[in-house]
Amino acid sequence: MPQDPFDWIDDRRARLESAGLLRSLRPRAAGSDAVDLAGNDYLGLTRHEEVTAAAGEAARRWGAGATGSRLVTGSTQLHAQLEEELAAFCGAESALVFSSGYAANLAAVTALTGPPGGGAPSLLVSDEANHASLIDGCRLSRAERAVVPHADPDAVAKTLAAHDGPALAVTDSVFSVDGDAAPLPALAAACRAHGAALLVDDAHGLGVLGDGGRGAVQAAGLAGAGDVVATVTLSKSLGSQGGAVLGPARVVEHLVSTARTFIFDTGLAPAAAGGALAALEVLRREPWRAARVRAVAAELHGTLTAAGLTAARPDAAVVSVHAPSPGAAVRWAADCRAAGLLVGCFRPPSVPDGISRLRLTARADLSDAQVARAVETILATAPEGA
Amino acid sequence: MPQDPFDWIDDRRARLESAGLLRSLRPRAAGSDAVDLAGNDYLGLTRHEEVTAAAGEAARRWGAGATGSRLVTGSTQLHAQLEEELAAFCGAESALVFSSGYAANLAAVTALTGPPGGGAPSLLVSDEANHASLIDGCRLSRAERAVVPHADPDAVAKTLAAHDGPALAVTDSVFSVDGDAAPLPALAAACRAHGAALLVDDAHGLGVLGDGGRGAVQAAGLAGAGDVVATVTLSKSLGSQGGAVLGPARVVEHLVSTARTFIFDTGLAPAAAGGALAALEVLRREPWRAARVRAVAAELHGTLTAAGLTAARPDAAVVSVHAPSPGAAVRWAADCRAAGLLVGCFRPPSVPDGISRLRLTARADLSDAQVARAVETILATAPEGA
Repeated sequence: MPQDPFDWIDDRRARLESAGLLRSLRPRAAGSDAVDLAGNDYLGLTRHEEVTAAAGEAARRWGAGATGSRLVTGSTQLHAQLEEELAAFCGAESALVFSSGYAANLAAVTALTGPPGGGAPSLLVSDEANHASLIDGCRLSRAERAVVPHADPDAVAKTLAAHDGPALAVTDSVFSVDGDAAPLPALAAACRAHGAALLVDDAHGLGVLGDGGRGAVQAAGLAGAGDVVATVTLSKSLGSQGGAVLGPARVVEHLVSTARTFIFDTGLAPAAAGGALAALEVLRREPWRAARVRAVAAELHGTLTAAGLTAARPDAAVVSVHAPSPGAAVRWAADCRAAGLLVGCFRPPSVPDGISRLRLTARADLSDAQVARAVETILATAPEGA
Repeated sequence: MPQDPFDWIDDRRARLESAGLLRSLRPRAAGSDAVDLAGNDYLGLTRHEEVTAAAGEAARRWGAGATGSRLVTGSTQLHAQLEEELAAFCGAESALVFSSGYAANLAAVTALTGPPGGGAPSLLVSDEANHASLIDGCRLSRAERAVVPHADPDAVAKTLAAHDGPALAVTDSVFSVDGDAAPLPALAAACRAHGAALLVDDAHGLGVLGDGGRGAVQAAGLAGAGDVVATVTLSKSLGSQGGAVLGPARVVEHLVSTARTFIFDTGLAPAAAGGALAALEVLRREPWRAARVRAVAAELHGTLTAAGLTAARPDAAVVSVHAPSPGAAVRWAADCRAAGLLVGCFRPPSVPDGISRLRLTARADLSDAQVARAVETILATAPEGA
């Protein structure tokens, strides 16, 4: 009799557990009054009445689901409107909405690259700290991959110079783990010097950086550039679900015809499209939200580091505080939670350098008093060695 | 001055166009009265009042988005309830919800396989007609891949016999293009004889096959089996958005700790979770919907083939009618649309054998008169050679 084919999972589980890497779900209740510094609802829009009402109205008007691929029955006029307004807001020629940011990144990386000799970029130059979805896109691509040191335009330039043929450089605009920003102007210059295209995942920049939250690409003066493509999520600053690719119209048209995660996925649910569209309207009307979230992040960083904790200066909404070990990070986060404060906890393999962290996200709708109380809680629960 | 880095797309576009493979979006209006045989809303639940109301209520109660990864703030009690009820309905020990079926498949394939010597299955045996998301999962996996002929348990057995070490066989339960079912009992027997695990994508089986729509895995007597994992979508029979993995609790726990598309993706929007949960309740109460969708598919197939068209006998809700060329398929679908009937149109690369097709999907809420009118329209617009 053969062994049970999933017995290997028990061994794997024991190894994860002894390394402090076993994860479990902690479903939250609807009425929690904990202060949330863990989610990515940077602008405080996911519970905004206009946004939730628009989500509900979209479900009533268009149905609870899109019913099929965007290429079959899954494109509604609501999706088209969201794409137009996203592109207009970010200053891009065109936009294409996906069911997630993960799907948008897989689409952009794979459809904009190919094997040598096919005409498409045959080299991917990828920052070593890029998001998992960009890495998976690189793995799925048939182009050659070169991983370069973090935030290093010279390394990108050298790698491009050594390649014979078209290339695509890929980077997060704001890195999720440490909250630091990529040097986009220098990266774009390096790409241009070598005729390469640049793909920027602006998931953590949209709504936070740029004029009125138009994103890191706009902040870098690259909005509307013919050689730059951006991806964004609808699930962070826009409080909803989904992702989008923004760029030249021909790039978007190419994705429509060729991107597997566009062609073979059900379209984004109308409620998510409607919610994101309403959030975009709120952000247009209330551009102060982008400035406020940056101010809250600066305040968190300033007070925590002044008290002796280690944290990189935030370039956007994420403040990442070092913890002495994965176990200490888990306990620290649990102690915060017990005190009514939700914080993120990043451990390997989510952290490139092996350093576990508390991950704090600023929100535009936090009051100064809430921020001060959060800082008190974090300091009061800090472990030895933090 | 280097060439514009996206100029290659213009050449690619011309090639796609001359091959009849250029795709474009056709956003639909909310008030269309066309009969829809193109979407995957098999049970007619996406516009069901209970389902859309539940989606709206979930957005109001929980927010328009999940705000973060399921491991951080993205798990609500609503997600947990949906997971419990999905598992109970399908007879699985446990379930895990993802933002899409695509993400669920990437997770299951990659997290349940690995390189040789690591303990996890080091061989993936994949049906040549599997869905793009399973194929991408195989490409991302570090296991060896063997693609086997379509619906061929003997080929699976031979491939497993030739492999030294644990393995995972992967198949759709119902293939989207032709609507034919996989021989699940024989595949499971082949896997068991060689100690391999079986992963079944039941996206097109849930709600259609099995007792009261419990899916193809349940229909095959494999519900709750310790060596079988299923994936489903929430965007077809359940009229919403998202996907899920169903299987032994230890498999689900393993995915929570290790699956990249679970860890690094924002959780499913509450509206989608609430909509799917309500659709599941309707299906439990009205099991006739599963039988009705199969009867409508049989009626479509019977009348169209009796009139001389070529179509495989449907095993579930999909009826696939051969067209003489990609161009003829596009024109045929357009003529149907002009006559008020929406049908799908599959062309390369969505069809494994290069034969373009009209893809018709049965719906449980179609009346006999609607089905008869649809058949008339399809026959009246059929091209020469169909």
